[in-house]
Amino acid sequence: MNVNNHPLKATQLSSQADAYDILFEPVEIGPVTARNRFYQVPHACGMGHLKPRAHAAMRAVKAQGGWAVVSTEETEIHPSSDLSPFAEQRIWDDHDIPALRLMVDAVHAQGALAAIELVHNGYHATNHYSRIPPLAPGEMSLNTNYPRQARAMDKQDIIGLRRWHMQAAKRAKKAGFDIVYVYAGHGMTLAQQFLIPRFNQRIDEYGGSLQNRSRLTRELLEETKDAIGDKCAIAFRFAVDELMGEDGMQAVEEGHEIVSLLAELPDLWDVNVSGWENDSLTTRFGLEEGYQVSYTKHVKSITSKPVVSVGCFSSPDKMAALVKGKVTDFIGAARPSIADPYLPEKIRDDRVDEIRECIGCNICVSSETLGIPIRCTQNPTMGEEWRRKWHPEIIRPRVSDRSTLVVGAGPAGLECALQLGRRGYHVMVAEASDEIGGRALHESRLHGLSAWRRVCDNRLYELNQKANVDIFRLSQLTANDIVDTDASAVFFATGAKWRRDGVGRSNRREIPGLENIIVHTPDDIMNGVNPGNLPVVIFDDEQGYMGGVIAEQFGATFSDVTIITSASVVSPFTIQTLEQERVQSSLIKKGVKIRTGEIVARAQDDAVETRCLFSGRRQLVACKILVLVTQRTSNNDLLSTIKEADFSSLRQHITHIEAIGDALAPGLIADAVFSGHLAAQNFEGDTREIEQALFRREIPAIPAD
Amino acid sequence: MNVNNHPLKATQLSSQADAYDILFEPVEIGPVTARNRFYQVPHACGMGHLKPRAHAAMRAVKAQGGWAVVSTEETEIHPSSDLSPFAEQRIWDDHDIPALRLMVDAVHAQGALAAIELVHNGYHATNHYSRIPPLAPGEMSLNTNYPRQARAMDKQDIIGLRRWHMQAAKRAKKAGFDIVYVYAGHGMTLAQQFLIPRFNQRIDEYGGSLQNRSRLTRELLEETKDAIGDKCAIAFRFAVDELMGEDGMQAVEEGHEIVSLLAELPDLWDVNVSGWENDSLTTRFGLEEGYQVSYTKHVKSITSKPVVSVGCFSSPDKMAALVKGKVTDFIGAARPSIADPYLPEKIRDDRVDEIRECIGCNICVSSETLGIPIRCTQNPTMGEEWRRKWHPEIIRPRVSDRSTLVVGAGPAGLECALQLGRRGYHVMVAEASDEIGGRALHESRLHGLSAWRRVCDNRLYELNQKANVDIFRLSQLTANDIVDTDASAVFFATGAKWRRDGVGRSNRREIPGLENIIVHTPDDIMNGVNPGNLPVVIFDDEQGYMGGVIAEQFGATFSDVTIITSASVVSPFTIQTLEQERVQSSLIKKGVKIRTGEIVARAQDDAVETRCLFSGRRQLVACKILVLVTQRTSNNDLLSTIKEADFSSLRQHITHIEAIGDALAPGLIADAVFSGHLAAQNFEGDTREIEQALFRREIPAIPAD
Repeated sequence: MNVNNHPLKATQLSSQADAYDILFEPVEIGPVTARNRFYQVPHACGMGHLKPRAHAAMRAVKAQGGWAVVSTEETEIHPSSDLSPFAEQRIWDDHDIPALRLMVDAVHAQGALAAIELVHNGYHATNHYSRIPPLAPGEMSLNTNYPRQARAMDKQDIIGLRRWHMQAAKRAKKAGFDIVYVYAGHGMTLAQQFLIPRFNQRIDEYGGSLQNRSRLTRELLEETKDAIGDKCAIAFRFAVDELMGEDGMQAVEEGHEIVSLLAELPDLWDVNVSGWENDSLTTRFGLEEGYQVSYTKHVKSITSKPVVSVGCFSSPDKMAALVKGKVTDFIGAARPSIADPYLPEKIRDDRVDEIRECIGCNICVSSETLGIPIRCTQNPTMGEEWRRKWHPEIIRPRVSDRSTLVVGAGPAGLECALQLGRRGYHVMVAEASDEIGGRALHESRLHGLSAWRRVCDNRLYELNQKANVDIFRLSQLTANDIVDTDASAVFFATGAKWRRDGVGRSNRREIPGLENIIVHTPDDIMNGVNPGNLPVVIFDDEQGYMGGVIAEQFGATFSDVTIITSASVVSPFTIQTLEQERVQSSLIKKGVKIRTGEIVARAQDDAVETRCLFSGRRQLVACKILVLVTQRTSNNDLLSTIKEADFSSLRQHITHIEAIGDALAPGLIADAVFSGHLAAQNFEGDTREIEQALFRREIPAIPAD
Repeated sequence: MNVNNHPLKATQLSSQADAYDILFEPVEIGPVTARNRFYQVPHACGMGHLKPRAHAAMRAVKAQGGWAVVSTEETEIHPSSDLSPFAEQRIWDDHDIPALRLMVDAVHAQGALAAIELVHNGYHATNHYSRIPPLAPGEMSLNTNYPRQARAMDKQDIIGLRRWHMQAAKRAKKAGFDIVYVYAGHGMTLAQQFLIPRFNQRIDEYGGSLQNRSRLTRELLEETKDAIGDKCAIAFRFAVDELMGEDGMQAVEEGHEIVSLLAELPDLWDVNVSGWENDSLTTRFGLEEGYQVSYTKHVKSITSKPVVSVGCFSSPDKMAALVKGKVTDFIGAARPSIADPYLPEKIRDDRVDEIRECIGCNICVSSETLGIPIRCTQNPTMGEEWRRKWHPEIIRPRVSDRSTLVVGAGPAGLECALQLGRRGYHVMVAEASDEIGGRALHESRLHGLSAWRRVCDNRLYELNQKANVDIFRLSQLTANDIVDTDASAVFFATGAKWRRDGVGRSNRREIPGLENIIVHTPDDIMNGVNPGNLPVVIFDDEQGYMGGVIAEQFGATFSDVTIITSASVVSPFTIQTLEQERVQSSLIKKGVKIRTGEIVARAQDDAVETRCLFSGRRQLVACKILVLVTQRTSNNDLLSTIKEADFSSLRQHITHIEAIGDALAPGLIADAVFSGHLAAQNFEGDTREIEQALFRREIPAIPAD
């Protein structure tokens, strides 16, 4: 076998543990004490009240990984704040306590504090299940896509709301929570709606002056404190800035004043920016470590209470500097704690280079917006703690001394190899090209996606520590090469290529006339092909992120770029990652022409013929180069050859053949990583256990009634 | 009190019960016998596996109402057909049997047969929970908005699928079902995907000829029959036509041939058209009773097995004629059984005029597409059978002899009066105008919405039978009038009016410059105001159906009509009712100009200034008349007056004051009817019971594990 081995050198670790001691100091929060400064702020996870066991297991792993505080997602305090069909937490009445206690007990068992984020969502709650008219400071349209309005709360309603909040707080205490939130953030809570003048135009003592607009929040803080402050700390989650300039709350204006007004009321300030798309900014649109600090840094100078700041922190140097600089008391994290639940442990144990750094892709967020259990591109165990008993750091050891071969070093292959390696198998990884990373590397070269490279970097780093893993580059294997290795298990992670014929979601047959025109695929663009010849048309029938990314890349350079999409917006999947407005806005600003609800039906010299999906109307659009973002084809020629009858005698020693990642079925990078992880976990596993995990789910109780 | 009483005359009933005897003949279906010809075909309900008790109670009421067969929604047979987050039924393994048995037992207790629709969704299942790569006849994009592809099934996969289906059938039998479905319809099942050439391009014995493409269906039918045919009837649900002409399955071509090929294999043919938006066509786009018969009528002439036909049937004359004419054996129904679960009973009991006729609005469908429990504009008890113990025909009797007043005879007022009347209270209904029906009547005058009038017609008919209800027209009451009546309970159903200042979802403050231009609201249009002066701009910031309806009405008459919407498509809510493509297509065909993702930011002489929500770019659009479809204001001046301190002594005898419907919070007509029903049900009810119903929900079991 003609292969080359180019192991990377491991980055030298410089022991800095002492410098990070400050991060591991205990911090008092009202009546409770956090063991260190790592704080998992409330974040949604698509499990909520529908999947309590999965939820508890997921939060427990974070506590185990060293977070001092582990929080729930938003927790509805009453059926008039009913976010159905989305699965947040609920604490409507005592029936919800057992499910919440599962999480509390699991978090406590790992030595962490459990926090609960109480919420009334006001005009953000459609109340689809409860069917109660939504509540708001005034009569107004909801901010959900439903033609139902909220009604204006009267004094009795406000008294009722305060009572619900207090009762929920008492139930939270009963469930065992250590920290209970009052929540005014993300453009989705009643407390925040009262604070902001464009939502609150009341003329009573709850509207008008800032004093009046903050009255409800003050009452909630005081009453929660009175009710449960003996045992529980009261946290206030507050969005200091809406990033709308003068049209909204600004950190330099009322965002500052509110902190002053309420400074000593809560036991803890958890501060961020609003709305959710700003708090959960993606790397594609500028997410950098500490990006929120400029908005939130003033808070600590105003209050004597501990402050939690967020900002996708993963570097302990930065974290320590922020604490030393008295910018924050706690390193708050949602996404970094998802990508690596063991981030605190790894810092403490001087294993900083092992941190799986969040790539800022918001696949975690998309789980929530889709209403499905959380997943993560970097951490494939996320969301699988209960169902599949996966753990981010621990994996079952090998059950034999079989030698394994992974063909392809993209996301699926690297993850599969890494986990097989961690299990103790001998692993050979054969990569056809001279680069490790496959799709994750190629896509990271596209506009805005450079952080996606972390998917390979992190895995390569770990793989290079392992004596039992050999990575071979420039190793385009043939079927004969494969059977010539001593591997008895072969995992095909050979990826997929973009189709060049236009077949996809809208055209189930190839687009006629493509021979008249120059056609490129995303693979060509990632390989550095430049359109050169204008005008360029991108036809996005996949509706993921790729079409919009290429349009943006071209828009930055070329003057005549059109994107045609079968969807009603560019890159509709990015609605789920909270990026879509930024995607479309950026294209418009770059002068990219956008044609929605259309497909390319035919190509001819210098033009494509579009068809409107609504009217059937056809139009010609000038085009020299057509980029087809339609559908992918799995690269499984090699797998097919191995499976052929001719090979049956040669492959007798190969008892396990499996396609993984895009070679099995193209999807997101997160899907590929998951697929590689799944294959490695299940390899030589108990068939019955694997089957059980596939079927494990939470089912409604059927009491007699 | 100066009021006029104009009771309507009741339509004379002509007894035709004998003519309908044929509808009540028992019919054999394989090994089981249906007690009559009324067949509730499978339909989604947003409850599924997440709300088994609510589901069982809902289906039970249909059985009680006389349906001979009551079916589930689609039931996933395996985690590789995982429709999460949508709540269909599941029969993945034995753990699902108890929930399904709840329904079976409840349906059997009412003397009906229980049917289950087994399904594998192929490329329609995203598998968000199970994370299994979706399966399809070939490698292809999903038809959901997710950038994940299905993989091509190999022979082993097909064998596996057949085994899963057979195992699911056995579990269905174990759960007690009488009828088990094989399902090839609605563009969402694997069996159908194999039948249709644009999805099935296989070159093995499952692709190519129709014989080959129907092989999988044949196998499923035969194997299901073999496995459970001794006790259970095997039904085949088949879409004979995709309404795509030559591009898809046609009833006159392969739709016919498939029936011939498989004619005698199932015990029952349940036939319709595909996709779902065609099967569930709305009245707005041409739904008429029996609209599918032209496509399905050939089936009965080919097979000797009983045939179920659907088509929104509500007239027993038509039904009897179809059976006598040997067009069908069963009157299939989804929506008519939702609007009136007692439809069969009412026909049998010669109470045809009491049938609550479906208005074809697809609010029921929207429940499913939103993932929330089913609701119905006409039948407010739908979906509330378990939670609130509501029943479409039975309501608790009055608990006092108090006299009640309902102010306003729109959907909420009529429903409230009807239910108070049925409870036995004396009810006065005061309507300010000379017409009964309020919003339901006014909107029914808009383009395509004439069927919505049934909301008032049905209620008026019933109200007019009641000696204890007096309806007063032309009765614009003052607060003094109200306190002068002997009513001790007053329900304000005074509706809402559309705002004229532009405040709404996008503009939380009024639009500047409106004084420079002629502004109309939907109320004006419903009152017959015609724009007259062109160009007309409709600004839809509500995003319901109204903006699109007005645009369509104008587009049919005028030449220069523009609709500006803050959404990415016209009337995005109609995506949920499966109408959106037809809405936008119709507007384009009528020459209406569509501007999406924009708002009206300012008005000036002869133009409005738009702002792009993505880029902030502003543009002028010529405009003489601006129709604002933004937000509504509840009409509650009268209620406020009554509540004023001045009135406290005068109103002492009024111990119950309540706003209902749009007067409480504007929403859909379905919301208004529900609100009126809720108020009447809860009037003088047990506070504790009412509270309990508000909080009643199904919660996941927490077994030790």
